[in-house]
Amino acid sequence: MPIVDLVADVGEGFGAYRHDTDRQLISSLTSANVACGFHAGDPRVMRRTVERCSEAGVSVGAHPGFPDLVGFGRRAIECSEYEVYTDTLYQIGALAAFTRAQGVRLAHVSPHGRLGNLVQTRHDYARAVARAVADFDPEMIVLGFPGALPAEARRLGLTTAVTGFVDRSYRPDGSLTPRSEPHAVLHDPGEIAERAVRLVTEGKISTATGADLELRADSILLHGDNPSAAAIALRVRGALGAAGVAVAPLTEVVRARGTTPTG
Amino acid sequence: MPIVDLVADVGEGFGAYRHDTDRQLISSLTSANVACGFHAGDPRVMRRTVERCSEAGVSVGAHPGFPDLVGFGRRAIECSEYEVYTDTLYQIGALAAFTRAQGVRLAHVSPHGRLGNLVQTRHDYARAVARAVADFDPEMIVLGFPGALPAEARRLGLTTAVTGFVDRSYRPDGSLTPRSEPHAVLHDPGEIAERAVRLVTEGKISTATGADLELRADSILLHGDNPSAAAIALRVRGALGAAGVAVAPLTEVVRARGTTPTG
Amino acid sequence: MPIVDLVADVGEGFGAYRHDTDRQLISSLTSANVACGFHAGDPRVMRRTVERCSEAGVSVGAHPGFPDLVGFGRRAIECSEYEVYTDTLYQIGALAAFTRAQGVRLAHVSPHGRLGNLVQTRHDYARAVARAVADFDPEMIVLGFPGALPAEARRLGLTTAVTGFVDRSYRPDGSLTPRSEPHAVLHDPGEIAERAVRLVTEGKISTATGADLELRADSILLHGDNPSAAAIALRVRGALGAAGVAVAPLTEVVRARGTTPTG
Amino acid sequence: MPIVDLVADVGEGFGAYRHDTDRQLISSLTSANVACGFHAGDPRVMRRTVERCSEAGVSVGAHPGFPDLVGFGRRAIECSEYEVYTDTLYQIGALAAFTRAQGVRLAHVSPHGRLGNLVQTRHDYARAVARAVADFDPEMIVLGFPGALPAEARRLGLTTAVTGFVDRSYRPDGSLTPRSEPHAVLHDPGEIAERAVRLVTEGKISTATGADLELRADSILLHGDNPSAAAIALRVRGALGAAGVAVAPLTEVVRARGTTPTG
Repeated sequence: MPIVDLVADVGEGFGAYRHDTDRQLISSLTSANVACGFHAGDPRVMRRTVERCSEAGVSVGAHPGFPDLVGFGRRAIECSEYEVYTDTLYQIGALAAFTRAQGVRLAHVSPHGRLGNLVQTRHDYARAVARAVADFDPEMIVLGFPGALPAEARRLGLTTAVTGFVDRSYRPDGSLTPRSEPHAVLHDPGEIAERAVRLVTEGKISTATGADLELRADSILLHGDNPSAAAIALRVRGALGAAGVAVAPLTEVVRARGTTPTG
Repeated sequence: MPIVDLVADVGEGFGAYRHDTDRQLISSLTSANVACGFHAGDPRVMRRTVERCSEAGVSVGAHPGFPDLVGFGRRAIECSEYEVYTDTLYQIGALAAFTRAQGVRLAHVSPHGRLGNLVQTRHDYARAVARAVADFDPEMIVLGFPGALPAEARRLGLTTAVTGFVDRSYRPDGSLTPRSEPHAVLHDPGEIAERAVRLVTEGKISTATGADLELRADSILLHGDNPSAAAIALRVRGALGAAGVAVAPLTEVVRARGTTPTG
Repeated sequence: MPIVDLVADVGEGFGAYRHDTDRQLISSLTSANVACGFHAGDPRVMRRTVERCSEAGVSVGAHPGFPDLVGFGRRAIECSEYEVYTDTLYQIGALAAFTRAQGVRLAHVSPHGRLGNLVQTRHDYARAVARAVADFDPEMIVLGFPGALPAEARRLGLTTAVTGFVDRSYRPDGSLTPRSEPHAVLHDPGEIAERAVRLVTEGKISTATGADLELRADSILLHGDNPSAAAIALRVRGALGAAGVAVAPLTEVVRARGTTPTG
Repeated sequence: MPIVDLVADVGEGFGAYRHDTDRQLISSLTSANVACGFHAGDPRVMRRTVERCSEAGVSVGAHPGFPDLVGFGRRAIECSEYEVYTDTLYQIGALAAFTRAQGVRLAHVSPHGRLGNLVQTRHDYARAVARAVADFDPEMIVLGFPGALPAEARRLGLTTAVTGFVDRSYRPDGSLTPRSEPHAVLHDPGEIAERAVRLVTEGKISTATGADLELRADSILLHGDNPSAAAIALRVRGALGAAGVAVAPLTEVVRARGTTPTG
């Protein structure tokens, strides 16, 4: 029986800036990437988000980013490997205090935004993130895109898992269609749900050119930053269930996957 | 045999602002209050400080403060109990990531600056700090001044320990002479060392008026923010040793103290 | 002919956190209180807001607040008078760079949130704000509630103007019904518009107990932080026009008022 | 009679982090680059620094940097041109509030740290800074290194001036010896003073290889971030005077230079 994790970036409010759509969205997920206060999130938002996840049985992961609130972690900062390591460790620890207070585990780490892009190719940053995970808790799963990060994580003996998109358009080479191009982001819940089912059951996703791309994903990343995010998540989850796909937190997906590494 | 802990606030640099006197000071301490990034400290400073403490066998405690870097945590912010709770939990977790990575325990929590003053009288803030400690790790010791904080901490079953000053002048009612008055801060290493010995061996300290004050302290707090801090710490430690006082980390002091609570 | 200014707090987004309702709201105002980056607003938000005001012929004022983004300037920080003075001067100058680049005047200053409350009673903070205005540009108008701020501002020879609410409920003593009580905030556009007309034409507003309160206002402050803010502003402006009230920027209101001071 | 400006970066403290060497250093300068709160400086530091400059007759310039306090503006942030423009305009305006309150002019703008490096080659950033200056006050002088910034500034009709180092080692191609290499920074006051005199009177400076480099500078930039900065500045000023070189604020140097542009 095929199995997949459903994840989204949540807890991205800050102070008076609320992301109240999180509540509904979380109820359709199996895992959550929770902002840790550097690019978004504050201690109240983090606590509330961890509590919501805990109540909904959603597994919590850390979503560390560059220290750039005004840029929402979307701009690279010319950090050293040591700066990325220490910033990541700090953010993981801060979030882990809230999971610990709530009596749940911090299950995975998935870098946010520009840092998430850079660890696909920059081995220094990938090493920094992987080392922070290993130093904090080597049982945690490193979740992200194929590339430098899973390579460095496995070098340290960490478990890795691969993220796939179903609401973004891929190019035939496996990269994402840049947001500046038309149709980079999909909006039709039915189409997105169909892509999710096909991705998990066939290991394929159709690209912008119409050609199929072979793709393996342990976790489907849904975008949480739009009003229809909760509706899309519900639709995807329903379609996966109807197609006989088990939807479960990352830890279970990884366990079910057995020894075959991905990424 | 009398026993006492020697502690100071360290890791109070930020970015390019270095506190390079920390290195020497730490070598004379048995415990350290380490800033956690809200009023001072950044992830690099925190890592370096925890490493120095670890190498010197100095026990590490968290020193959470108000989120006010420009005010160095010395100005009250009109926070709710929930804000103090979540801010404290966040800071404890962030620092704990570095102690964990270093393979040492986070042994105590001692609120910084204005927060440290307010928890003497404000039970809401005292409860917030105590609950954050209890929710994170009920084995940690709550270190501070007599008042609301130890009361709320003991209500939650936590171990408490009392801080005493030897380089600040007390008033006969047990409060500190305000810094705005002359002689509020003592500078003579010999005098400071003598006061430390008398405090631990006799339980007394002379006040600004010359009268003696009965005082019990598990931990002597030395000011770290002056160039001669390291010299003073060395002198105090030497004098205590010469007077037959054991100098040891807070955990050992508390253990030796047995069941008699203080504060 | 009666005359009044219509003002709202705008430019309260930050980074990825947008307040896109501003655009419509601004078109119904005659003045705007623009956040300056300490409690909300960033240089992009400030530039865009000043540009929108300039295009709509809306007069721009500075809305300085406590340096507390996560608390949205709603929490008092235990600042000295000198800290409030320098923080206010910094914020006025930063916003003035954008009005200058846009070729418009910075016409008034109105403190935000908790600072705005405190300057009603704390003469030290009132003096700090007034002095910052006087030192930057004594032609600017100090806008706010009756109390210490207009008193200190007039002492420095500054022009003052009084803010009145029509979407908040007053108590018979002239204070606002706390938000924690029911009916503290009015939502019905028709009722709000009626109160605005009566306030300007009769100098009266009905209180929570039903009794009338004598009230004089040069500027009606509409809340901008709700989805219907633009609709309410439009309705108020329409009702004022229909009742023969001129709606004009603060400078004109003050000029028309002549020599009678308020506040 | 040859003439040159003596400048240093000052006002680089923040909150409790003081740079108390500024006081003495300023007394030997003719101009000062004052931090504006993004990479260093806070409203109190800015006010105090402007006051010190004003009292010493030292001309004040803005020293805008990347918004990165923890990185001291030494790390590039992947900003858009629009972000650099708005951040620069904000910082210039904030500092200008303090010069205005003090009754002095804001005479020049010189980008700090990594931004100062990048505007030598990145025309988008150079345009952003130049446009911010032009939009705020086209009478201000743009001070910096040869390259994109003076080119873009002159395109907007601005006056430019060139900075030269005498306490850093140049390579024969005119670039600075990287700090990672030995002898990148000179420390001997006598040698530094001699280099200053030769630079101004002969237009030459000896490079790391011993060969001479032709160099023109309107302003000599002395490093302020070391304990002997004030002593070096005094020595340089004395040597220049003894060699018959006039030392004067940038505005006068530019006026004396006449129509010959540099940079």
